[in-house]
Amino acid sequence: MKSKVKVAINGFGTIGKRVAIAINKQDDMVVSGIVKIKPDYNALFAKRMGMNIYTIDKEDANEFKKKGIEVYGTIEDLIKESDIIVDATPDGVGENYKKLYNKYGINSIFQGGEEANIADISFNALCNYDEAYGKKSIRVVSCNTTGLLRSICALSNLSKIEKVNAVLIRRGADPQEIKKGPINSIVLNPVGLPSHHALDVKTVIPWINISTAAVVVPTTLMHVHHVTIRFSNKVEKNDILEALMNSPRIILVDSAISGIQSTSQIIDSARLSKERGDINELVVFKDSITVDDNEVQFFQAVHQESIVVPENIDAIRASLELSSKMESINKTDKKLGINKILY
Amino acid sequence: MKSKVKVAINGFGTIGKRVAIAINKQDDMVVSGIVKIKPDYNALFAKRMGMNIYTIDKEDANEFKKKGIEVYGTIEDLIKESDIIVDATPDGVGENYKKLYNKYGINSIFQGGEEANIADISFNALCNYDEAYGKKSIRVVSCNTTGLLRSICALSNLSKIEKVNAVLIRRGADPQEIKKGPINSIVLNPVGLPSHHALDVKTVIPWINISTAAVVVPTTLMHVHHVTIRFSNKVEKNDILEALMNSPRIILVDSAISGIQSTSQIIDSARLSKERGDINELVVFKDSITVDDNEVQFFQAVHQESIVVPENIDAIRASLELSSKMESINKTDKKLGINKILY
Repeated sequence: MKSKVKVAINGFGTIGKRVAIAINKQDDMVVSGIVKIKPDYNALFAKRMGMNIYTIDKEDANEFKKKGIEVYGTIEDLIKESDIIVDATPDGVGENYKKLYNKYGINSIFQGGEEANIADISFNALCNYDEAYGKKSIRVVSCNTTGLLRSICALSNLSKIEKVNAVLIRRGADPQEIKKGPINSIVLNPVGLPSHHALDVKTVIPWINISTAAVVVPTTLMHVHHVTIRFSNKVEKNDILEALMNSPRIILVDSAISGIQSTSQIIDSARLSKERGDINELVVFKDSITVDDNEVQFFQAVHQESIVVPENIDAIRASLELSSKMESINKTDKKLGINKILY
Repeated sequence: MKSKVKVAINGFGTIGKRVAIAINKQDDMVVSGIVKIKPDYNALFAKRMGMNIYTIDKEDANEFKKKGIEVYGTIEDLIKESDIIVDATPDGVGENYKKLYNKYGINSIFQGGEEANIADISFNALCNYDEAYGKKSIRVVSCNTTGLLRSICALSNLSKIEKVNAVLIRRGADPQEIKKGPINSIVLNPVGLPSHHALDVKTVIPWINISTAAVVVPTTLMHVHHVTIRFSNKVEKNDILEALMNSPRIILVDSAISGIQSTSQIIDSARLSKERGDINELVVFKDSITVDDNEVQFFQAVHQESIVVPENIDAIRASLELSSKMESINKTDKKLGINKILY
């Protein structure tokens, strides 16, 4: 039997912990260890899950020992015994570790909070898995960009896309973030157009003509996008529906059947049907899909904490040439219970 | 000297009280009385301002008298001694009073929460003042529709408009509303497209091709719109800027100069420079204005409590044939201190 590839995780926050749990569900990879800076509740959880904890410096280990958490060594020790590292450090911090990863020649997966040039390629499994195959370093784009790419790539075969205009209504903070706002404001993010998301989409599919605008609002649960796609030719609503239904990692939610018309209802429903209430799928509101000649408009919702988790798993397989595109996507989705069902 | 026309106000909530205050600042009209159901803080304020208070039924007067508020009669008494009535009752309630107004043959101004067919015409001063001239009943469209009409009509002379797509990020409740939500959700309003705003814009300018989508978010201060207008021909950014600058009741806010990039900063700024912090103008974010060939996109913000106040004053003048369009707009703006300046 082929041995599992060993995956190091640097950072065990919102994304890191979810990717670690997801990796240990696969049959071709295992978490070799996680790197933590502070011995907080996430570190205590990691210990209870039997994950080996490493620190940046030897000195950091003392704080962990005081809380009864064993430390297995430094990040350099962990890198030496791993095949690939997933950098899940905060936005922009991955850049600081890039030199270290390069020093040891380890393959690396970065997150969308980093600049695009940190890695050999920016990645979305559905859009450009094959181009990422064998790449030494891969950047999994951010949650909002992943959401946009899922629907755009799912619909890009119907007809030539002339223009995408998307308005992103972003959650202000993740549920545990107590120092971020806004409490009572709609913040243009930024005022100038386009928002960076349009450029970020183009790091994966450079051929697309896209403009995005974003606002931040006082909620913690999910982002909502309003997407307008103008095609070269007239499109049929049924073709749109079929393309989205047949695409991996997209849920079509029907408000007429479920009564779901908001992010809070999506999350409440997912708390019944999904582990941790995470929704790895992009949620498209089926009855918002409206076709006007060659233009389609719809609403979609993005669970910012978890939508990139399956992409990280696929990025590991692509980088280490473990599986072909659909083999990896299908395996990831099966092991993570991604079933395109919300209720 | 010409005597002032006497204006009755039915309802003294968010809109009614602001319209009453605005009327008493004009030199050609005066509030003859206001109709209140409950003797709450708004009623106590009206008393202190010297406004005459009327009730629906004689029995209601007792509750007012208990609080030391004199009642001058019933709504029918008030109508008999007034030239026109502004209905500022809650959404949909104006319909119940229409018969009463008709019984006495009094001219009437309704708000945008009523169905369009309640009045002879739906109204925005900039877009269709002349068409409303002499109309027995006029409906001032809602705050969101007013905001959309201000920018659309300001730009409609530049080139033929092919399509307007607008995404409305709506405040969940007004500041004093303690029983409305959402607290932590983005609510599609509604899921199906278009939202009613597109149809409402067409009640004033039926020739427009428009689609709108709306979400409701947890904030109380202002609405934000992202507007995309596609013209028949290429447009120049300078022409857009000039048209907006020269249009009444539009403020261009420059985030690069002011640092203002959110609704809360707009309101905080208005608290210094405007009465009650009300912003009767539509606020367009100057540095969001982005032109791509024949398409322009921008953000605008709408102060839901006060944007329709000047339109109500103009509607009174149009209905009673007191002034021509620009004469009325200029007079209203001068008396209300509407100066297109935020800071």
